Amino acid sequence: MARLAVAARAFSAAASGGGVSLVQGASRGIGLEFVRQLLRRSDGGRVVATCRTPGSAAELQKLREEHAPGRLTVLPLDVTDESTIEAAAASITETHGSLDLLINSAGILSIPNVIQPETTLSKVQKSSLMLAYEVNAVGPILVIKHMWPLLKIGGRSETRRGFALVANMSARVSSIGDNALGGWHAYRASKTALNQLSVEFGRKDNIACVLLHPGTVDTDLSRPFQRNVPEGKLFTREFSVQRLLSVIDSVKKGDNGKFFAWDGQEIPW
Amino acid sequence: MARLAVAARAFSAAASGGGVSLVQGASRGIGLEFVRQLLRRSDGGRVVATCRTPGSAAELQKLREEHAPGRLTVLPLDVTDESTIEAAAASITETHGSLDLLINSAGILSIPNVIQPETTLSKVQKSSLMLAYEVNAVGPILVIKHMWPLLKIGGRSETRRGFALVANMSARVSSIGDNALGGWHAYRASKTALNQLSVEFGRKDNIACVLLHPGTVDTDLSRPFQRNVPEGKLFTREFSVQRLLSVIDSVKKGDNGKFFAWDGQEIPW
Repeated sequence: MARLAVAARAFSAAASGGGVSLVQGASRGIGLEFVRQLLRRSDGGRVVATCRTPGSAAELQKLREEHAPGRLTVLPLDVTDESTIEAAAASITETHGSLDLLINSAGILSIPNVIQPETTLSKVQKSSLMLAYEVNAVGPILVIKHMWPLLKIGGRSETRRGFALVANMSARVSSIGDNALGGWHAYRASKTALNQLSVEFGRKDNIACVLLHPGTVDTDLSRPFQRNVPEGKLFTREFSVQRLLSVIDSVKKGDNGKFFAWDGQEIPW
Repeated sequence: MARLAVAARAFSAAASGGGVSLVQGASRGIGLEFVRQLLRRSDGGRVVATCRTPGSAAELQKLREEHAPGRLTVLPLDVTDESTIEAAAASITETHGSLDLLINSAGILSIPNVIQPETTLSKVQKSSLMLAYEVNAVGPILVIKHMWPLLKIGGRSETRRGFALVANMSARVSSIGDNALGGWHAYRASKTALNQLSVEFGRKDNIACVLLHPGTVDTDLSRPFQRNVPEGKLFTREFSVQRLLSVIDSVKKGDNGKFFAWDGQEIPW
């Protein structure tokens, strides 16, 4: 397993900057932080942020007001409702015309009384398996499906990267080879399926697709499970997204289909 | 990647024989052939075969009549209906009391007008992704969940293998690392998820779980896609199951969580 030459390359905002970036699942957590850091770049890049209910996404609306008109667009998108994905794609086609970077960030791990990470086989529920798959694997793939025509244009255009990039937020527990703990069946199987669904894209088009492991990050998603995180291993959103953007900046077309951790280390399947 | 020492060990019916074997998805194809070959063994082992509608499973009923009373039991089980899995487990508990071998064979690849293997991203449908996951990944895991108490007893008992074994029928296209062709999104993602869900079992109990690739076998499942199979690479059901049973006979407890092809070759994730 190789390590991406993140450290060896000077960090360059330009490498992934400019162009149009779509952050899917942007109302909170890692997605929101991606939006914040992409907007902070001085490359004039435009950002489209999607979430289920833009009206109640106060942080996104605040960011939109803080930046020049047109730099941040907030659109409704629910990965479980394909019609909203199609509508978002139509809207971006009209306002931006292309996409250079797509970050699929929305994910589900636990919701009280709905889905709870399984500690043993006897707690595995069909409803949890199906819901996690729908949100974590099917959702991102449908987003890619409908954004592909926009990414094709982004890939052809004069982006500084030279190709369009899709970055799917995966997680180390999705690695079958790396699995040491077990448990969390619904979550990890859905992310493993996402990995499998991500490896094909970009073989024919000037688009690459990579999978990213953000580390254990202090977000709503990880909050109920932070007790067992070793000291120094619980990252802030700022740190994790800074490192993930370094990885994104360093990705080459030949890295299509690879799975990278926040530190550029490649993760086995 | 290691190769299982299949060839080096004399084939021994006793190695996996005796005891109680459950073949899930047994009305046709590879599942039916497993039932046939397990019954042909002279070890007196009993076989439970499940399928959705035993009443119309003529081949299974014929096999039942051909063998001594009690050697073959045919039970209804639909992997998409958990209550039928629970009912089958209750029935086996009553009639057999334990399980030594569980073969999960039912799988879905294509049904006219319902699910069709995708050739490109634009043909990926949410309904196909969800259905394949439900049948190919969720189904087998729910079967394992409800049969686990029976397998625990089988693992403790004086089986000739020394532990109970779960063999999940996977497919080489489910290997992310091995993926060279792409396409077949719904099918391969579901089997990859099955692989991920299979690696944990048996860490604490005297049960091992392995994944098997049968090769491309002349069954209803592969029929629409046999045109592109290279000469000599389309196996008969008899040949494939013979080889798979050799693999099953050769599995050791330490092979828990591994993925083997019909020839004993280990397949990467």
